[in-house]
Order: sequence, then structure tokens, then C-alpha cells
Amino acid sequence: MPSFSATTGGADPEARADRSVGPVVAQVARFDTPLPLACGRTLDHYELAYETYGTLNAERSNAVLVCHALNASHHVAGFYADDPDNVGWWDNMVGPGKPLDTDRFFVVGMNNLGSCFGSTGPITINAETGKPWGSAFPVLTVEDWVDAQAQLADRLGIARWAAVMGGSLGGMQALDWAIRYPQRIANALVIAAAPNLSAENIAFNEVARQAILSDPDFHDGNFQAFDAKPRRGLRVARMIGHITYLSDEQMEAKFGRKLREGLNFSFAPEFQIESYLRYQGEKFAEYYDANAYLRITKALDYFDPATRTGGDLAQAVASASCRFLVVSFTTDWRFPASRSREIVKALVRTRRHVSYAEVAAPHGHDAFLLDNAQYHAVVRAWFARMTADIGDIGVRAVSPEPSRSGMRTSRDTALTPMSARVSAIDRADYAAIAGWVEPNARVLDLGCGDGTLLRFLGKQRNATGYGIEIDDAGVLASVANGTDVIQSDLERGLAGFDDGAFDVVILSQTLQAMRRVEDIVAEMLRVGREAIVTFPNFGHWSHRLQIARGRMPVSKSLPYQWYDTPNIHLCTVADFDAFLAARHYRVLDRVVLAGGRPVAFMPNLAGELAIYRFRKQ
Amino acid sequence: MPSFSATTGGADPEARADRSVGPVVAQVARFDTPLPLACGRTLDHYELAYETYGTLNAERSNAVLVCHALNASHHVAGFYADDPDNVGWWDNMVGPGKPLDTDRFFVVGMNNLGSCFGSTGPITINAETGKPWGSAFPVLTVEDWVDAQAQLADRLGIARWAAVMGGSLGGMQALDWAIRYPQRIANALVIAAAPNLSAENIAFNEVARQAILSDPDFHDGNFQAFDAKPRRGLRVARMIGHITYLSDEQMEAKFGRKLREGLNFSFAPEFQIESYLRYQGEKFAEYYDANAYLRITKALDYFDPATRTGGDLAQAVASASCRFLVVSFTTDWRFPASRSREIVKALVRTRRHVSYAEVAAPHGHDAFLLDNAQYHAVVRAWFARMTADIGDIGVRAVSPEPSRSGMRTSRDTALTPMSARVSAIDRADYAAIAGWVEPNARVLDLGCGDGTLLRFLGKQRNATGYGIEIDDAGVLASVANGTDVIQSDLERGLAGFDDGAFDVVILSQTLQAMRRVEDIVAEMLRVGREAIVTFPNFGHWSHRLQIARGRMPVSKSLPYQWYDTPNIHLCTVADFDAFLAARHYRVLDRVVLAGGRPVAFMPNLAGELAIYRFRKQ
Repeated sequence: MPSFSATTGGADPEARADRSVGPVVAQVARFDTPLPLACGRTLDHYELAYETYGTLNAERSNAVLVCHALNASHHVAGFYADDPDNVGWWDNMVGPGKPLDTDRFFVVGMNNLGSCFGSTGPITINAETGKPWGSAFPVLTVEDWVDAQAQLADRLGIARWAAVMGGSLGGMQALDWAIRYPQRIANALVIAAAPNLSAENIAFNEVARQAILSDPDFHDGNFQAFDAKPRRGLRVARMIGHITYLSDEQMEAKFGRKLREGLNFSFAPEFQIESYLRYQGEKFAEYYDANAYLRITKALDYFDPATRTGGDLAQAVASASCRFLVVSFTTDWRFPASRSREIVKALVRTRRHVSYAEVAAPHGHDAFLLDNAQYHAVVRAWFARMTADIGDIGVRAVSPEPSRSGMRTSRDTALTPMSARVSAIDRADYAAIAGWVEPNARVLDLGCGDGTLLRFLGKQRNATGYGIEIDDAGVLASVANGTDVIQSDLERGLAGFDDGAFDVVILSQTLQAMRRVEDIVAEMLRVGREAIVTFPNFGHWSHRLQIARGRMPVSKSLPYQWYDTPNIHLCTVADFDAFLAARHYRVLDRVVLAGGRPVAFMPNLAGELAIYRFRKQ
Repeated sequence: MPSFSATTGGADPEARADRSVGPVVAQVARFDTPLPLACGRTLDHYELAYETYGTLNAERSNAVLVCHALNASHHVAGFYADDPDNVGWWDNMVGPGKPLDTDRFFVVGMNNLGSCFGSTGPITINAETGKPWGSAFPVLTVEDWVDAQAQLADRLGIARWAAVMGGSLGGMQALDWAIRYPQRIANALVIAAAPNLSAENIAFNEVARQAILSDPDFHDGNFQAFDAKPRRGLRVARMIGHITYLSDEQMEAKFGRKLREGLNFSFAPEFQIESYLRYQGEKFAEYYDANAYLRITKALDYFDPATRTGGDLAQAVASASCRFLVVSFTTDWRFPASRSREIVKALVRTRRHVSYAEVAAPHGHDAFLLDNAQYHAVVRAWFARMTADIGDIGVRAVSPEPSRSGMRTSRDTALTPMSARVSAIDRADYAAIAGWVEPNARVLDLGCGDGTLLRFLGKQRNATGYGIEIDDAGVLASVANGTDVIQSDLERGLAGFDDGAFDVVILSQTLQAMRRVEDIVAEMLRVGREAIVTFPNFGHWSHRLQIARGRMPVSKSLPYQWYDTPNIHLCTVADFDAFLAARHYRVLDRVVLAGGRPVAFMPNLAGELAIYRFRKQ
């Protein structure tokens, strides 16, 4: 059994300075127990290359597996002593004081089976023939990789991962871990991924494959040496892939129509984007293996956990029991946000713990590899919350996080007083709502801010459920606070939630800011048995008085000017009564507050804030 | 000189039944005057293949040139008698009674130089060598094509096109005609095009070229026979291109993850999208020429009229004098709407006549070839307006347009009473506004509906300018009415317009429906010297009375309920006075109307509709 706690160079002062894990050493574990594969074949012997960073604690409760995407490897962080420029592919994410903090967590990076960086794959020698596997190497699936990762976990003595984490194809592995090894994973971080490939995704993969398969040097995968490989096909394949990793905007900003020199009316490179892509293609053709590339694109195509449950993704994820963090990026057109939302919807349907961040980033799919402030802050907050869950993590004390300009860290944002809307709710408001929520209720809080109300209901009524929030800071704060939060625009409706999924749906001080009031109320009573709505009462005497004087009202409860108010659909208590009556909704409770106290006499005239609890007849 | 008025079979009753131009005959025109090319070389002799449909009138004023995109040809409409399934590529657009009506217009389709369907190109014999041109054929540009088209126009005796029209690369040719041959074109229809390729566009072209160039059968373009061509490269190139023609949504709807049979854990096609793409690639490799493909992608890459004017597109289009119709499609990600908007912005900057339709269509770039109701209705309305402009078109009477279910034709929509907002403006409103607009003023009308107000100002004050409208029906009606209309969402602001571009900017009955009131008013006074704003007065006594009684007001001027009103930022006359005063805007005129008549006494109490004219100090 190899040593696996001493590969980091955390003690090296220079490495500490830039918060790298320092020089690392790749290791190889050999397995002689046959591994059954999805295709029906079996790998009798195989090796897995891996690296580890940080220290496994005595309870073995702080281990995190980082899964790689298409062309990456086990070299996640740090560098090699003899090749210091070869920095791990996720070095900005993993290291001392970084979002995945190696001062607290023991991190494992592993090269997937069938890849070409040290684990068994098409370029390794098949012991039975004495030649490279080549085209004889089986087509593997994400599930096969995860099964192999589980073997390595056993070897390392890790019964349960604190987290499995990955972006893109790596996120699919994290999802598969959650589904098929629910007892062995406490948290899944599924980043820039999808529950399966779309037709367009498959189409791009297929074109890339065709480029390789039709290269005469491919020889049906049995090219004689790594050097005699089908470079032309690999080059074209990589160029295609590379386009899909970048956003249109980013490519435009970086290259636009810039020329290298001038037009030459030939097919030599003229535009900078052409030479860039050719360079990327060349580089890839140099280091990557064609058979591995073909197979990894197939693993992507095949991944579709819902096929095991008749196409029902929710049923597929029902076996999972870990907490999920799902992250997508706004300009990712390879795996757009809508695909991550499918995963979230399935997890919500089966009442899993899930938070979802839709991060604004210009970099397209590549954003998952980059140092985006909100993205890293959310991941950092997630691991910080995990640290709290794990309790005494049993490794050395953590150095304070230096504040970095231009980056909103959890220090800057998570603890900022935020979500004035929710925080400003009067205690009487809280008390009224808590009084109406049944013990152990399932609650959906629309516009949850930092999650204060949900936590309050959790404590008071043992309620569980989700918050929905559009604001980055609210999402980050909710994650930091351990609230299950889903980043979403309420104007898109509640399509992510099933009929009758909740006991109560709460819309606090937000109704008047919605464009489609009728729709959101109808949606609340579709997904919830009961609705609780609070809004400022336009009928308050101070508003009536100002209008009688010929001006639009401005007050403590309506603090904006007519032209910049977010409150675009205001109403009075009498209006809302009529609105509910016209729809035959039944009012179960109604409290109208002024100065934080209930108003009994003439509430439409004296009340500032109205709180309704209602349901369908 | 070939006969060019008798190629259509319009008299054939069966062809009339499906409104085809019927059987057509391709013709070839030979030119022996040297054609100088952008690359510096010269074509001494060349042939152009073309087809014509309809009849050229005596004044030769009804000729329309249809330009083709990447892989199409001169075969635009109809079919060949000996090959009836070979229907023209734009047969749904061109024919008797179709949007481009061959009962009224004489339509010319031409195969571009360098293509491979009859015009001189790499596969034709170079007279000087007696062998196919192959790699020796020059790399042509859009400008070279247009110059050759002008030669054909001369040959056909067409001094001035009624219109030049094209989609994608064809739209670029229409744009080039407008810029470089301004005296020879009355209308340009620039559809699903761009003012140049983006970095991503070039990237896709470059990958396609690399696939061909790296095919060992390419032999530097000198493959010995058409049949010995680099099929593998062509196949991959076409597959890449094909992905970019379709929208993600459409591909998902059509193919999704549907399998042909089952998974086979090999590289034979498994998903339907794979076999579809392979089929498209095979078909293309069968009929298309590799050298032609390489060159046509280069013509796309090179197209950039702004390079002739130091990167300033507006300066580049300043030479144009024709009317422009620019059309884009919402799901086109090859040439997204934003690229068409760049063309529109340049044309507006130089005060050209331009209308712009942003058509909602799910089909991606391919939408320009399909029969979308709004798209075809706008083009139909455009040509109908042209017919009126041309006057007696001198060809036979036009058969009535049969109404087709599910398709909004110009009959259905253009003449529908619409834009209640503008049409409902009281005459007093019109009169007040017209009284404030200087003779010959440049006017921008935000939310122009069917263009009634602009036409009124045109008649009363000889005003010119543009309308902005978001609604499909309004855009169509404006086009039908000959108003220059630009389809746009005012919430995006007026980024398409320069500072001080207009004398007056009008916002009629729309302020209260805007999300960002301050922004739009600031934008109005940025692009215009003066602003005219009309809005319903919330201070009207009937509103005050209803609120005093504890309900949100509903009235003739505010006919909606609080929860469904589009009026989200209401104000009183006193509020608007204060709003303008706080910003130091100078009120030049103010009229408050009730029952269509000006109110002098207590306008904030008695007025229903307020009309302001104001400017910066």
C-alpha cells in the first residue's frame, strides 16, 4: 500500500507564499482483482495513477476526490520538482487556504482508466499480448471509472468521501458517485455538468471522432507507435472541441478579427484565431492518444443515469443521500445552465439536499477551470460549512485567509449584512409565519435572501425545504449558512418544482415586485398546499393622503420614488381580499401589522404590512 | 445574348396549383472581358450559370437578384423537367403569389464564380492548361462575386435591380451591392447575415478547412479527378458546418438522444444524430468540390466592408442609397441578431432607409430557408410596398393570395387594426405633438405601433426618421405602411442610436410601462435634442377617489387591475413636474388632456393624459 499522506510540500515556505501545495509526486496503484465493465468485458489487471494533497485525519473523514474531465489527469494541484512549470490543472481551486483547502482536507486526484497519463489505457501494454492495447482496449463508461475510483478509495482506506467534486465530465462522475455509492459520499459538487449529452453535444463529439477515424494514420486504432498516431485527426478533433469550450463573447474579446500579418489569399493562417486553434490542435496531438480520445467522448455520450430508471432522472437520483452543490456558468453553451437545472429539479423532486449557483461568467464552459470570484466563494463556503459539519477535522490549524482585492471571498460577502428585504422583516412577521407553519412542514421560501427565515422555521417548527434567491450575495450567504438555496429568477416561474411538493410556499415582501402576480400566486398554490404572502399595504392612510395631495406616496414601507421603485404591482388589503375572493382562494389567516404590532381596527387604513395565509378551496 | 424571359413555366396549370414557377432551364452566359479580382489576379474568360423566373417589364424596373449562400446555386425556384425532384433551394420564397412574387417581379438566380454548379470555378477546365483549374483557381471575395453579378446584369440589360436579396452569405452580397453599386440597386434584403465573421465563425471555418487540407487525398488541391477528391475532409467539414446551421433546441427536438438500435460500445453510429450528420456529410462530399468549399469559406472570412473605411461600418455603408430590410432570427447562433443589429446601427447612423425584423424562430440559422409566417409576411409586405413604389409594373394581373391556415399572411396581420396604443391616441394628442415638431425634423418614435404617428408627422411636418417597435404585428404593419421600423425592446435602451441623432424622440403612452424610467428618459435626451412624453395622469380625481376608498384605481386611462397592469411606474402630473425639475430638464410645452380637450384649471386633478415636451437645459 503506497504512502498517501506525504506527497504534498506544504512545508516549503516558497510554495506556501503562492499557496501552492508545492512539489508533488504521482503514484501508481496496481489492482489484480478483475474489474467488470459496462460493455460486458472485464479488466483483469489495471493500474491507477494518482496524487494526494493534504493530510488524511485519524477518522478518515476529510478525504475529497477530484475527478477530471476530458483531457486532464491526476495532476490536480502543485507541481513536479523536476518540471516546476507543470502545474496541476485545478491549482487555483486546491491548495492551502484555497476554496478546497488542503490545510483541512485530504485531496485525491486520479487519472481515469482508459486515459493516457499513467492509468491503464490504450497506450499501455496489454500483458496478455505484450503489445499496447490500442483498439483492443474496451470502451469504458463513467460508471466504469467510478468503480475503479472506488477500488482506489478502498486501497487508500477511505470508506466515505467527505466530497467528490468535478467539472464537466468530472461533474458527471461526482453525480454517479452520489447515485451508485450513496453510503460512500457525504457531498457531491457537480460543476458545469449535465445529466446527459444533448444531441448537439453528441454531434460535436461525433465530428471529432470522424476526424480521427477517417485519418489514414488511424489504422483502425492499431497505429504501431504513439508517435505514428493520427495527428491530423487529433488536431481537427481538438480544434472542434476547443471552440465549444469558449464563449463566443470571450473568443471575440480575445481574438476578434485580428490578423497575424495581412491577407494572403491562400490557406495559410491569416487570422489570429486560426493560429491559436492550430496551436491548440498541435499541442493536443502531441500529448494525447487517439484511442483514448475516442473512448472518452463515448463515455460522455453514454452517460445518462436516467436510462437505468426508464428515463426518469428523479428516480435515478433517488438513491443518493449526500448533499449536492450544483454550479453552472451563464455563458457555458456546451453544458448550459438549463442542463444543470435538470439535475437540480430531479434532486428537488426526491427531496435531496441541494444548492444551486448560476454563476455569471464570460468564459463559457472553461469558466469551471478559472478563478471566478463568486464561483470560488461559493465552493469555499461549501467546504467551510462541511468543515463545521465534520467537526474537529484533526489536522493542523488553519492560516487566516488573506483578503484579495477584486475577489469577493466568503469573508467579504457571506458575512455582510445582506438581503435587507428578509432581514428587515419584523419579528412579528416571523412570529406570525412560524405560527402558521405546521411542525416538520416542507417549506419553499421564494426570495429567501440569506436564508434567515428558513433557518428560523427550521429551529421553531423543524421545517425543511429550499430557498429561492436570484441575488449572488444571497446565494453565497445561504450556502455559507447551510441553507439549501436554488439560484433562480422567480419571473421564470416554479417549473423546477412539482405539484404539491411543499406544505407551504412563502413569498415575503416580493409579490409587489413581480411582473406576473397572478402567475406566481397560481404557481405557489400549484407547488404548495398553502401559500403565505406578505406585502406592503398601499391602502395605508399615509399613502392615501399623499395621493389625495396629488403625489405618488413615499413611506417607510414604500421607500422608493415612483420612477425607480421595484414595487410595480402594489395593492391594498381590500384589493388583495378581492383578488383572493375572485379566485375562490380560502384565507386561512390574515394579520396586518403597523409598527410591528397587529392592527385589528380598520386594517386597510392603519396597516403597513399585510400577511396572508391562504389555499385553494 | 440569351433569352431571359421565357424560362418559367408559369402557364402550366399543375405547377400553378402548388404555386411553383414550374419547370425551369438553366442558362450559361460567357464573358470574355477580363474580370479583375481582389487578390490581384484577373479572370480573362469566365462563364456564369443562371436562371430567371417571371417577366422583365418594359421599363426593366422589376428585376430582383437572389444571391446564394455557401453551397447553393442559381437554381432558386421551380424544378427541372427531366429531374422534377430537384426543386430550387428557395422555392418557398420565390414563385407566383409567393413573398417574392414572380407574377410581379423578374427574378434572377446566379451561381457564383468559384462555385461548382456551372459557373467557372476550380472544377472547370482552365483553357490555358486544358486541365481543371484545381488549386490554381484564385481565392475570390464577395466583392469579386458581386462584380461578376454586375457583368451578368449588364448582359441582361438590367441597369438597376429593384432588389438584391440573400440570406447568410447571400445577404452579404446584397449588402455589398448596396455599398459598391448604389446606383444599381433600389432595395437590399439582408437576411440572417453579419457585417463580418466573428472569431467563432472564422474558427469553425478554419476547422472545416483543416479537415480538408489535412486529408491525404487533397494533394494540395490538385486531386486528379472530381471523383478522387478528399471525401473524408469534405465530410467532416460539412458535419461541422451543419451543426452550426441548426439551433440546439431544434436538434434536441428532432434527435435528442434517440438511438438507431442500441449501444454497441464501438464507433459505429449509435445515436440518430450521428447517422444524420454522417449522411449529410456523405451527401455533401458526393456533390461538392473541395477547392470550391475552401474558397467560399475564405470569401466569408474576408468579407468586412468596414476594412475599406478604417473599421468604421457606418462610413462603409454611407455610399448606399437604397432601402434596406434587415432580418435576423432569434435562435440563429451562427449569425446572431446582435450582428444584424450592427448593420442596422451603421445604416441608422448614416440616415439610410432601413427596417429591421427580429423574427422568433426555433430553427437557428437555417430559418432563413424555411417558411416562417412572420418572416415571409414581412418579406411579402416589403415587396408589396416596392410594387406600389414601382407603380405600373407592366406584367400581368396578380392572382389573389389564398389564405393558408396557421400562417399569418400580410392579409391576416398587416391590415388588422392593431397597436391600440398608438391608434387610440386622441387627435388632440396628435395635433399637440405635430405642433411641437419642427418642419423637416428627424424623429424617433419609441413604440411606434403600425407607424401611424410617424406617417402623420411625415405628412404634417415633412418629418423623417424611425419607429421602434417590439411587437411582430406592429413591425409587419409598419413595413407594409412603408415606415422605417426597427424591431427592438426599449428596455435594452437606445444603444443602436448615436448622441444627438434626432431632433425629437417621442415616447407615447409607454413611460409608465418601462422598468427603467430614468434610463429611458436619459436615453431619449442623449439621442434627441428634445423629448416628447405622454402618459396617463395618476393624479386624476377618479384615481384619487378610488384610493381614498381603499382600492387601486381602474379607469378609462388605466383600464387594468393592479395585478395585471402593464403600467408599472405610474405618476401624477405633479410627480412628473418634480421629476423633470430635479434633473434640471427644461419643460418647453405641456398639455394635459381630458376627454380629448386641454385642461387649463387644476390639470393634475382633472387631466387624464399628460403630454410633455422637454429638453436638457
